[in-house]
Amino acid sequence: MSLSLLTSQEETIIKERHELDEVFNPRSIAVIGASPDPNKAGYHFFKGLVDLKFDGTIYPINLDGSDVLGFKGYRNVRDVPVPVEYVIVAVPAHEVPKITEDCAAKGVNVVHIFTSGFSETGRANRTRLETQIIEVARKGNVRIVGPNCMGIYHPKIGLSNFEVFPSKESGGVGFISQSGGNTGDFARMGTVRGLRFSKLVSYGNASDLDSTDFMEYFAWDPETKIICAYVEGVRDGRCFVNVLKETAKAKPVIILKGGLTEAGTRAVSSHTGVLAGSEAIWKALFNQTGAIQVESLREMIDLALAFSHMSCPKGRKTGIVGIGGGASVAAADFCEHAGLKVPRFMGDTLAGLQKITPVAGTSVKNPVDSPVGRRVAVPEYEETLRLVASDSKIDFLIVHLTIDWRIRTPEDRRNLQDLTKVLIMIKKSLGKPVVAVLRSSQSLPSWQVFLEEQKSYLEGGIPVYLTLQDAANAVSKLIQYYEFREKAT
Amino acid sequence: MSLSLLTSQEETIIKERHELDEVFNPRSIAVIGASPDPNKAGYHFFKGLVDLKFDGTIYPINLDGSDVLGFKGYRNVRDVPVPVEYVIVAVPAHEVPKITEDCAAKGVNVVHIFTSGFSETGRANRTRLETQIIEVARKGNVRIVGPNCMGIYHPKIGLSNFEVFPSKESGGVGFISQSGGNTGDFARMGTVRGLRFSKLVSYGNASDLDSTDFMEYFAWDPETKIICAYVEGVRDGRCFVNVLKETAKAKPVIILKGGLTEAGTRAVSSHTGVLAGSEAIWKALFNQTGAIQVESLREMIDLALAFSHMSCPKGRKTGIVGIGGGASVAAADFCEHAGLKVPRFMGDTLAGLQKITPVAGTSVKNPVDSPVGRRVAVPEYEETLRLVASDSKIDFLIVHLTIDWRIRTPEDRRNLQDLTKVLIMIKKSLGKPVVAVLRSSQSLPSWQVFLEEQKSYLEGGIPVYLTLQDAANAVSKLIQYYEFREKAT
Repeated sequence: MSLSLLTSQEETIIKERHELDEVFNPRSIAVIGASPDPNKAGYHFFKGLVDLKFDGTIYPINLDGSDVLGFKGYRNVRDVPVPVEYVIVAVPAHEVPKITEDCAAKGVNVVHIFTSGFSETGRANRTRLETQIIEVARKGNVRIVGPNCMGIYHPKIGLSNFEVFPSKESGGVGFISQSGGNTGDFARMGTVRGLRFSKLVSYGNASDLDSTDFMEYFAWDPETKIICAYVEGVRDGRCFVNVLKETAKAKPVIILKGGLTEAGTRAVSSHTGVLAGSEAIWKALFNQTGAIQVESLREMIDLALAFSHMSCPKGRKTGIVGIGGGASVAAADFCEHAGLKVPRFMGDTLAGLQKITPVAGTSVKNPVDSPVGRRVAVPEYEETLRLVASDSKIDFLIVHLTIDWRIRTPEDRRNLQDLTKVLIMIKKSLGKPVVAVLRSSQSLPSWQVFLEEQKSYLEGGIPVYLTLQDAANAVSKLIQYYEFREKAT
Repeated sequence: MSLSLLTSQEETIIKERHELDEVFNPRSIAVIGASPDPNKAGYHFFKGLVDLKFDGTIYPINLDGSDVLGFKGYRNVRDVPVPVEYVIVAVPAHEVPKITEDCAAKGVNVVHIFTSGFSETGRANRTRLETQIIEVARKGNVRIVGPNCMGIYHPKIGLSNFEVFPSKESGGVGFISQSGGNTGDFARMGTVRGLRFSKLVSYGNASDLDSTDFMEYFAWDPETKIICAYVEGVRDGRCFVNVLKETAKAKPVIILKGGLTEAGTRAVSSHTGVLAGSEAIWKALFNQTGAIQVESLREMIDLALAFSHMSCPKGRKTGIVGIGGGASVAAADFCEHAGLKVPRFMGDTLAGLQKITPVAGTSVKNPVDSPVGRRVAVPEYEETLRLVASDSKIDFLIVHLTIDWRIRTPEDRRNLQDLTKVLIMIKKSLGKPVVAVLRSSQSLPSWQVFLEEQKSYLEGGIPVYLTLQDAANAVSKLIQYYEFREKAT
């Protein structure tokens, strides 16, 4: 990780234990609705904890008190003979108020309600049911996550509500989401692209704990270095803005706002029942706080990758090195459209490049278009990179090539690996940030090589993008974030 | 193919044989520089023709007159004892004028010069070399493709200059490109996404045949239904605009303009040596002609898919059906941002949907958010689609789901296939255009299923997109094209 976002001073003022820590670090969990029937959601929530080897104790609760996956079952959370800190609820909506009462009586700290069919339906009786739950919870000193959500995933301790994503491997990216589906999509797509997560939160209707609470927690959480959020609406706008302002000063905050259009707003109201707010209000919010707005989960992953794997360049001056003239033209266009600069090189760089680059089918101006061919001469490639990375007019490098030409023979494949090694070596020795673009047709063989090479690049501290456009956009927004933060402090 | 772009009247005015037909339909080809050495480009050009089983005769030409891959070799094209119509040149630049003379003497119609190192280098002596070639060619009545390019790929007859892409399978998409790298990327990426090609042209420096010539040919070519082009600059702007205007009236023309920014323009000048033209001029050109501008090859593929696989909706009113509340919100936002409409359904549709949709975790407003779960109830899914597709306020459907949930067991996989079948059946029986979005994490197992399902969808006349944003953008631009064409005629 190139990001060390907390100064020692900041670290000393971190509280020993944040008040929401009980939401993320329970030591005992009961799953209500965890029957042995694999057709029930409760079974899968329970199985998720088993598969992920949750660090604490787990208890299945169901109508018959049946055992599940070899764990002793109970009929009621109150029957569990030891304290239960955290409860996952996956039973029909009308049973949830009573269950919440039981949880309060048992002294449970947190109840995650997976069940949907509450205020998001827009029906008065369903909204009353939700209000009723919250009243019980408040009185009993129970915090509620949800209802209508997937809950918390904290891989490090094996707290999993995402049976489809069973890994304890963790990283610096935290995700807060009003949508369970988006949480799963983000987690799965992000994992393939090399992101690793501190915590994922799917919080649904936000009847108690809201985006603001989770944002505040992530701002504090030492495990979370980068905060991503999918937000449909917030209850207390002013409070959210204040928390966001403070949070974005300390850590990058990347937000996808759902429901910016009329139809989107209508969809929000039936999805999580919150008020969406106008597009103009949200634009102003991003401008004020320095939080970064993205248009899609794909863009969110691109940005999280940049923040995870590269340090901030000193400026916007981009050195572009790649193979393919058309791609070089595109690289220059995308960089300038994204607000980056593609300056001419210093005279020494040009002279050096001219010495090693054949005159035909190439260019030594910025972008550098190296000779096209299935195999690239490694010493010349290394020298090209060294010259460009040493140029005092260049702040960082974008390096691009096409995978598909380089996978047909073992020699091609080795050549590709050599290019990767050389780039990582140059990056380490010259210290300037580097971003890679690996073009792949996404045929299965090409995509497999992409994923293998991506692993090496990420280990070498180089984020990898699928297109030049994605790379230019991610770096530009990364620089913009740090510029804002510098001005704001 | 849902596109029948030529009326019978138009078909009758098609000339028997277009004057550029000799460029695309040679019956005999010599490859100059085709040595038996696999390290030479000429070897690979020759091997491409062998692998693709070119329909005519082929002759390797090299300094020693060596045979290549079992084909009899010659020292000079003039030594070939029968007529040669088409020549591919892959030898050092200074030899090309003499070779062009030999070709003229031999009565060759077309010379494709792969060799680079001419006017694109910006050097006076190199530019002179190119001029010299063109003079010889004009005098000898030889047409030149290039120099500095990959040449022509015409899969139907096995004319391949793309050894990496050896398939005779053809389709309706023609591609004209100043960049060889972009041609390869477009062909490979497009193939994976389900595009099939009539002809691909990489024409480099355009010293003789230019984008205007190829555009005119594609406008005529009955095999080409959709025209894609990567253009860096054109020699005769007025002529290009006129041809483009006429072409776009008959067939969709999708253009990626390289070199719109200052740095991009500089890159163009060292890539193909043409004048790039300002961004404003090109914007005006797109507005005048109805040609569709795209920002990237990825977007070009998305649009070509739409034009290849769907008919034009009657209007912009989108019915969205999918699984996942967050994705539904995003779908609505992306549609409205792209200029599509997401109207409320008719009362009957709503009532029908309410009958079959559980109240919890769903929405029956537009977008329809179906129950989340690994397996979807097929009859309800079918009825949902039928109701939405029958709604008189809806012009076309966007249907979306996540692959990754549906690939773990054989039952999941079958369920996914059932959903595909139902959608295709509904589309066929109700006749409204349908676009599908299959979200995939792009893990290898998920991506493999994506590619398999995509095949079924495409066969059923439904283009498939990776994201809701891509789908909304593609449909919107498709509608915009047909609206322009209707107004213009």
